Amino acid sequence: MSKPKQLKLGSIILGVGGTMSSWRHPSVPVDASVNLDFYTQQAQTAERGKFDLVFIADGLSINEKSIPHFLNRFEPLTILSALAAVTTRIGLVGTLSSTYSEPFNAARQFASLDHISKGRGGWNLVTSPLEGSAANYSKEQHPSHGDRYEIAEEFLDIVRGLWDSWEDDAFVRNKETGVFFDADKLHTLNHKGKHFKVAGPLNIARTKQGQPVVFQAGSSEPGKQLAAKGADAVFTGQNSIEDARAFYQDVKQRTLTEGREVDDLAIMVGIVPIVEQTDEAAEQRYQESINRIPITEALDVLARFFDHHDFHQYPLDEPFPELGNIGQNSFRSSTDRIKARARELGQTLRQVALEAVAPRTPFIGSPETVADTLQRWFETGAADGFIVHPIRPEDLDVFVDNVVPILQERGVFRNDYEFDTLRGHLGLPVPENRYAQRKEANTAF
Amino acid sequence: MSKPKQLKLGSIILGVGGTMSSWRHPSVPVDASVNLDFYTQQAQTAERGKFDLVFIADGLSINEKSIPHFLNRFEPLTILSALAAVTTRIGLVGTLSSTYSEPFNAARQFASLDHISKGRGGWNLVTSPLEGSAANYSKEQHPSHGDRYEIAEEFLDIVRGLWDSWEDDAFVRNKETGVFFDADKLHTLNHKGKHFKVAGPLNIARTKQGQPVVFQAGSSEPGKQLAAKGADAVFTGQNSIEDARAFYQDVKQRTLTEGREVDDLAIMVGIVPIVEQTDEAAEQRYQESINRIPITEALDVLARFFDHHDFHQYPLDEPFPELGNIGQNSFRSSTDRIKARARELGQTLRQVALEAVAPRTPFIGSPETVADTLQRWFETGAADGFIVHPIRPEDLDVFVDNVVPILQERGVFRNDYEFDTLRGHLGLPVPENRYAQRKEANTAF
Repeated sequence: MSKPKQLKLGSIILGVGGTMSSWRHPSVPVDASVNLDFYTQQAQTAERGKFDLVFIADGLSINEKSIPHFLNRFEPLTILSALAAVTTRIGLVGTLSSTYSEPFNAARQFASLDHISKGRGGWNLVTSPLEGSAANYSKEQHPSHGDRYEIAEEFLDIVRGLWDSWEDDAFVRNKETGVFFDADKLHTLNHKGKHFKVAGPLNIARTKQGQPVVFQAGSSEPGKQLAAKGADAVFTGQNSIEDARAFYQDVKQRTLTEGREVDDLAIMVGIVPIVEQTDEAAEQRYQESINRIPITEALDVLARFFDHHDFHQYPLDEPFPELGNIGQNSFRSSTDRIKARARELGQTLRQVALEAVAPRTPFIGSPETVADTLQRWFETGAADGFIVHPIRPEDLDVFVDNVVPILQERGVFRNDYEFDTLRGHLGLPVPENRYAQRKEANTAF
Repeated sequence: MSKPKQLKLGSIILGVGGTMSSWRHPSVPVDASVNLDFYTQQAQTAERGKFDLVFIADGLSINEKSIPHFLNRFEPLTILSALAAVTTRIGLVGTLSSTYSEPFNAARQFASLDHISKGRGGWNLVTSPLEGSAANYSKEQHPSHGDRYEIAEEFLDIVRGLWDSWEDDAFVRNKETGVFFDADKLHTLNHKGKHFKVAGPLNIARTKQGQPVVFQAGSSEPGKQLAAKGADAVFTGQNSIEDARAFYQDVKQRTLTEGREVDDLAIMVGIVPIVEQTDEAAEQRYQESINRIPITEALDVLARFFDHHDFHQYPLDEPFPELGNIGQNSFRSSTDRIKARARELGQTLRQVALEAVAPRTPFIGSPETVADTLQRWFETGAADGFIVHPIRPEDLDVFVDNVVPILQERGVFRNDYEFDTLRGHLGLPVPENRYAQRKEANTAF
């Protein structure tokens, strides 16, 4: 009998937190977003919980209204490399934008992280939703949503090509004969496309996981298509089990259509759990947290999804306003979702805004309740796994010490690491080197 | 009485080594260039020796003739970030090219390294000598030497501007009042120049060293000028004490001319010491090493400085050939130096080539002899310090355990760290935030 499939767990580390006022909680170090000790502690806690990975998000443009964590935070590749030195098994995934980077630099830095961590590196490919980014990168304007995904597809293709520059057995390194490498196993990409021209070869080898794991985090149509075609994992936000199942079905079907196996792409849903001793205590904490949110802060958070549209101009307790195309060029899937939900439930602006800060999720309750929900989502095709966003630092400890053991007991989460690469944890295949494959094909004739 | 001035020490970590065959020595791990444990060990050895810094060089283009270390090595910012987590005092300096990076990314990544290391970060600004780099970065051609330095100057100006986005006391972080930052102390750069348009602000604060230390490693005329105008330190190669003194005088004079203090720019000379128990043993090791170099390898190393010019076409034991402008657009200061020395000494091609691999330096001898030479260079205005390139991993141990104690005994090198930032070690001033200065000036009126 084969072992039952197990769910995957990650944790996003968000420094002073994901909201405007999260930093004010007594247990949050005020400098958490640039504090190595804080990041080390969180990553080691997740590793203690046998998590698959930690996740570092990113953004390339701030203004006075940005949430505190965005104003002053580590750049993902540097902090992940530091965490590689103080952890041993957990995967290390970070965001880098294909709109504002060079494929050669991206390929090198993630490959380098993958070597530093001995096969635990991962890249979350984003196309940068924030319009303001262009002004930081000598660009006249932020490319349209469609153009960004066209660029992303070519970018990913180049990065994967560069990662295969050296076949796995290219480095002979025989001190006696003096042969360092086999020149037949060194390959030059010579990519010439619409947006990039990149010759290669890359100046770094593959690791034992073949290539870093590629996450894709956009949930719009082109985002889903890019994931199905070329990513190894998806990080998505879903508000209900029905939405999550529909998304899961859709993306897995697209993956099959692209000629890949259903398990070649792991779908991980971001969750913000509130776990307390009892369901009642958890519900009370949620209600208190909602009541503490200043409405002006909530309106500003909402505005982030809509190109900083001024929501203060509308009455708070009337139906959510019609917004036309505002925000369509940035977080498209989020704005569509927010508008659809507001229509469906007849929400007021106030309700929509408060939900934008602290959504009422099904991951609120006792350890048993939250474990039940996770298991239900996992077993009914809503997610392959979850990326936990701890509201306060100690929420990660609570999850690790109380929810994880229940999942382990039930056999749906590992008791200990069985692999030492991120691909191993996630059950993803090690991609064959594209050149090695071709050679094999040739031999057959 | 004020303490006598002390020399500075750094170590470059070069994985499998700086020559074509250095990896073949029994004590070199064959995967050293992508081996975190090796880098950790070297950095910790340098820290045991109270060195000011470790240094990670870089390059953006390889081909089949590149030396083994170049073919498969860590990217500098990622490996330095990892080393930050396993060291506590030593400075961490790495190369990044202003020709093939975005200033916003460079500013962020070095600021992030500076936070991860709590004020020990440094950036070695290069303009990328290798012509082949352009083909990896969607560029039609490698910019000329002059253009590269023009770009570098604007790039550095932007990066320093971005680093000052937040005044040192901008982050109020008062949990009671809910004030996270003082908006008057957040500054937007709005740079609009010939090569770049970068708005800012940067999404990361300054550390206690103000800004990462900026090294400049080109020794051509525009390189010296850029250093004098905007760098904090220079990493230069010099073959004789006379050359070094002339360079030192020249660059320090330029620094004064730019309105800066003579100690605002530290000049560090790269050295490849051979230290053995006695002068005779060291000399013997040098001779053996020269005799082991295959002449074809030496010709290829020489070719690296001359745009991969084919030197095999010339007779080995006749005077060094006339080369015209070959190599002028890449390593200009090196090619000028090589040609001048060949003319001066009437060297043959063979001699020039062997010297290109293993120069006959004055840093060959017993610990006493090498300490004497270092002290003479330091005290007679040839260098403020040295960056040691250990030929074999254990050469760093030999230097730390045998040469350093002599320098300490003589009072020309620290017995222990007195500071915990790289600027502190190097005796460099913490740059005032450009906006804070302006405000002060305004107050005076």
